[in-house]
Amino acid sequence: MPTLCKPAVSVPEYVVTMEETLEFAERVHSGKPQLPLALRLIRNTGVRKRHIVQPIEEALRHPGFEERNRIYELESKKRCPEVIEQALANAAVTVRDIDAIIYVSCTGFLMPSLTAWLINSMGFRYDTRQIPIAQLGCAAGGAAINRAQEFCLAHPRSNVLIVSCELCSLCYQPGDDTIGALLSDGLFGDAVAAAVVRGTGGTGMALERNSSYLIPDTEEWISYAVRGTGFHFQLDRRVPGTMEPLAPVLRELAANHGWDARNLDFYIIHAGGPRILDDLAKFLDVDREMFRYSWATLTEHGNIASAVVLDALRRLFEDDGPAPGATGMIAGFGPGITAEMAVGRWTVDTPGEADRARLDALTSHVQ
Amino acid sequence: MPTLCKPAVSVPEYVVTMEETLEFAERVHSGKPQLPLALRLIRNTGVRKRHIVQPIEEALRHPGFEERNRIYELESKKRCPEVIEQALANAAVTVRDIDAIIYVSCTGFLMPSLTAWLINSMGFRYDTRQIPIAQLGCAAGGAAINRAQEFCLAHPRSNVLIVSCELCSLCYQPGDDTIGALLSDGLFGDAVAAAVVRGTGGTGMALERNSSYLIPDTEEWISYAVRGTGFHFQLDRRVPGTMEPLAPVLRELAANHGWDARNLDFYIIHAGGPRILDDLAKFLDVDREMFRYSWATLTEHGNIASAVVLDALRRLFEDDGPAPGATGMIAGFGPGITAEMAVGRWTVDTPGEADRARLDALTSHVQ
Repeated sequence: MPTLCKPAVSVPEYVVTMEETLEFAERVHSGKPQLPLALRLIRNTGVRKRHIVQPIEEALRHPGFEERNRIYELESKKRCPEVIEQALANAAVTVRDIDAIIYVSCTGFLMPSLTAWLINSMGFRYDTRQIPIAQLGCAAGGAAINRAQEFCLAHPRSNVLIVSCELCSLCYQPGDDTIGALLSDGLFGDAVAAAVVRGTGGTGMALERNSSYLIPDTEEWISYAVRGTGFHFQLDRRVPGTMEPLAPVLRELAANHGWDARNLDFYIIHAGGPRILDDLAKFLDVDREMFRYSWATLTEHGNIASAVVLDALRRLFEDDGPAPGATGMIAGFGPGITAEMAVGRWTVDTPGEADRARLDALTSHVQ
Repeated sequence: MPTLCKPAVSVPEYVVTMEETLEFAERVHSGKPQLPLALRLIRNTGVRKRHIVQPIEEALRHPGFEERNRIYELESKKRCPEVIEQALANAAVTVRDIDAIIYVSCTGFLMPSLTAWLINSMGFRYDTRQIPIAQLGCAAGGAAINRAQEFCLAHPRSNVLIVSCELCSLCYQPGDDTIGALLSDGLFGDAVAAAVVRGTGGTGMALERNSSYLIPDTEEWISYAVRGTGFHFQLDRRVPGTMEPLAPVLRELAANHGWDARNLDFYIIHAGGPRILDDLAKFLDVDREMFRYSWATLTEHGNIASAVVLDALRRLFEDDGPAPGATGMIAGFGPGITAEMAVGRWTVDTPGEADRARLDALTSHVQ
């Protein structure tokens, strides 16, 4: 059974607190009639701080799409390798064991994708499959997990590396001042995350079943306007209400697997915003506390797009992890509006002698 | 065994002949020292005509990245559904039978991807998986076929729709005048292609094994510069020489499958340019005529990026198709530099009664 191992996550060194966010918004958009509502919405996000790849003064400038994308390339090359090394070590595999890299990112655009550079610079095999996905936004974390599961089922004993590199601050658009844009300015943060799905062995969530769902006729609710100034994030006011139609879809996935969504042992949910988490708990009839890892990610990092589910899963691991056999669900939500979901059981690897020796060798190499 | 069924292909109504291309290049770049070599290279492509989505006068203007991308959205929505309907009919399946859509396109950028619109407007099931890939360029046709194979292996009895929408003329950059840019201006054409990979049944190429390969340290040989004016295609002069390192990789894939690359019955090769096809035949030690479907695509449509392999495969089908059991290989090449390859046997479906009734119903519906 393909197993999603412990993610590694890194957030950049520049911190923006909620207070700073509110100050910047008041200063930059002073006097605009939509400002009071935007400030209230930002306060309601509960995001205490976010981490970004540049000092705030630079992040607030727009040096042009070309320069923004150049910074994306530089920063992703600077930040991904270390996180990947950690994710490989977490899964007790090496670069040579990886058969596919699924790279998800909607905040910069490179062709070839960063996968080519990663293979060349980090020693992955040249026959590693490259699966770059740029257009699923926040749902891409869940999609990457599901595509990795399928790859491992199609190629038994293979291993897939998932990399999520979301530098949302590089999509800040100073000229955008709708309520949705102002809220987004206060919500999104930067992060790099990675995790390995092992075809055999490994400790983590055994991926047993996945599904996807598009909420009918919501294409324009979360979208990019593509302009000479780059990607302009557009958020419709109806998005926070989408958990009512999605909760039955999550329930159905659990039911198809013979489970009751009310009785799962753990949940890893995309922390799109506070209402997403509150509503989903309500409509699924589960305790709010079930989503505590998602709440922690939202509070400490903001909405880090496709990296949210990996960061929430990391927290579950670090909270000692559930007991073997515990049942759980992962769900990512993003443009479409698309939900990418997976259910599975917690599994704990009991490595054989050979594995143990390899693990020891690997650990000593990393330190 | 997942089977790649007959592709449907459509090229737009505006035609640019080789003579017109040469005239435009001479007029627009008159007096530039690199012009004579560029004209000679364009003549050598053997591309007799290309089809584009706008009249040439409009295609030569650059109305800005935003407007270009708006045209991409309009034209892709206008042109994809009919091609998809045809591909579904070719495979004797309906929209409701499709479990995943792999949408590949490197010539426009939408988020959400066109997959969301296709599901909403064409009646695909809302649980259809969406797999948009934008960053594999010309290699994405081969990649889509390989990912579709894996999806069908992971989810037995499922069906995957591949859509390739390449409107290369929307990436024309009037200000770019390197040799590589001028050659590209004379080489690329527009096309929409689609094909279904059926998990069970179907007539076409049974997909038995796939592989991928990145030529070391060639990331910058085929790439996009991303600017305020959109995607700028950059082509290195070393690209035509890449078949020497790739031929052994194709040979190895065949050998791993117990086959000799010199003795396959059919080849579907990305027609990146004439030297790609000539060199690959030489280094694989196969007759130039083995690549006749790729040559025909190149001559009649130009390099239509990820759609090339689907268009070449369509020609193989229309040439009566190989005998059942015939062995063949598909290979797409693109940025990275990445090769995406598959081998398999020709298979002919003998539908049962139920299938036949369904097929009849479907055909009468389409007509």
